[in-house]
Amino acid sequence: REAREVLFFPAGITCVERLLAAAEREAEGVEGVGLFPPRCSCPLPHEDEGPFGRLLGRLLGARPSLQLCLFAFSSPQLCRAVLVLHRRGVRIRVVTDADYMALRGSQIGILRRAGIQVRHDQDSGYMHHKFAIIDKRLLLTGSLNWTTQAIQQNRENVLILEDAEYVKLFLKEFEKIWENYNPA
Amino acid sequence: REAREVLFFPAGITCVERLLAAAEREAEGVEGVGLFPPRCSCPLPHEDEGPFGRLLGRLLGARPSLQLCLFAFSSPQLCRAVLVLHRRGVRIRVVTDADYMALRGSQIGILRRAGIQVRHDQDSGYMHHKFAIIDKRLLLTGSLNWTTQAIQQNRENVLILEDAEYVKLFLKEFEKIWENYNPA
Ligand SMILES: [Zn+2]
Ligand SMILES: [Zn+2]
Repeated sequence: REAREVLFFPAGITCVERLLAAAEREAEGVEGVGLFPPRCSCPLPHEDEGPFGRLLGRLLGARPSLQLCLFAFSSPQLCRAVLVLHRRGVRIRVVTDADYMALRGSQIGILRRAGIQVRHDQDSGYMHHKFAIIDKRLLLTGSLNWTTQAIQQNRENVLILEDAEYVKLFLKEFEKIWENYNPA
Repeated sequence: REAREVLFFPAGITCVERLLAAAEREAEGVEGVGLFPPRCSCPLPHEDEGPFGRLLGRLLGARPSLQLCLFAFSSPQLCRAVLVLHRRGVRIRVVTDADYMALRGSQIGILRRAGIQVRHDQDSGYMHHKFAIIDKRLLLTGSLNWTTQAIQQNRENVLILEDAEYVKLFLKEFEKIWENYNPA
């Protein structure tokens, strides 16, 4: 059955350390990781089934490819997840908004320095999309910017669609923007 | 066949006067409106098939009900469309963000003064959704705020889904927010 899901935020503050640490250990090739999931002793709830845990889980499942088309990307945890994918050899491309990218807290510089391909807009309007395409198979799209405020405090939605027709339309939009923002 | 469509913006500046004028004349009960669509002599292109024309067309098709859950609503043309629906007797409820509502150019005051039910958030975070539910049958959701800048200048998307499962999830979210924002 195809994935059909909507994530509604705010998520409440939960700790996703275990989820991220497990993925990081797996990317490093640590053995037996499935048997001994990393622990975290912080006082926050450890809910992998909340909307943020589910978003991270979907993202961490990416292989072989990920396209991100995001107005704002400042969540350190989502950045860690993308870095894990990059280490794992997932082919990643990122399109973002030049104005937001310049703000303090943006994680775009970190992604670039890690060697991930990033392009930004040259337009007067905003590059206001907030979508991700995982493995050219799964579309994540909605109102949610990838910021801690959006995840923890705002009313937001993310649709998850495993639908060839919608994926194709968004992939075409991504490729169009990717070419438009070619600095060469 | 169920509606499956994605609108990508920016739309370029087109004139939607004919579309709106036709709907307004119909709401007033002017006869023979289908035979003589109103003309407009402005120099802009009159494209009803661009993304903005299609969005307006979907919206103007609403009866008997419309739920709007919008962070920002400042487009005068989308406001005219909602006022037409109100005059036509469509049951309309609007949920919006308090901070944006207070900005100049917001159309929320106009909707309220026309007698449309509006509720706004009381939260510290933003009410950042941008979705509409038409006739409890059609879901419009994406990155697009209902502002002229977003329509004409930003890179944006609106998914149109005629899908009972997704509509139900978003309607549930709408009702939850509607109750949360009850001023009583
Ligand atoms: Zn923890
Ligand atoms: Zn005109």
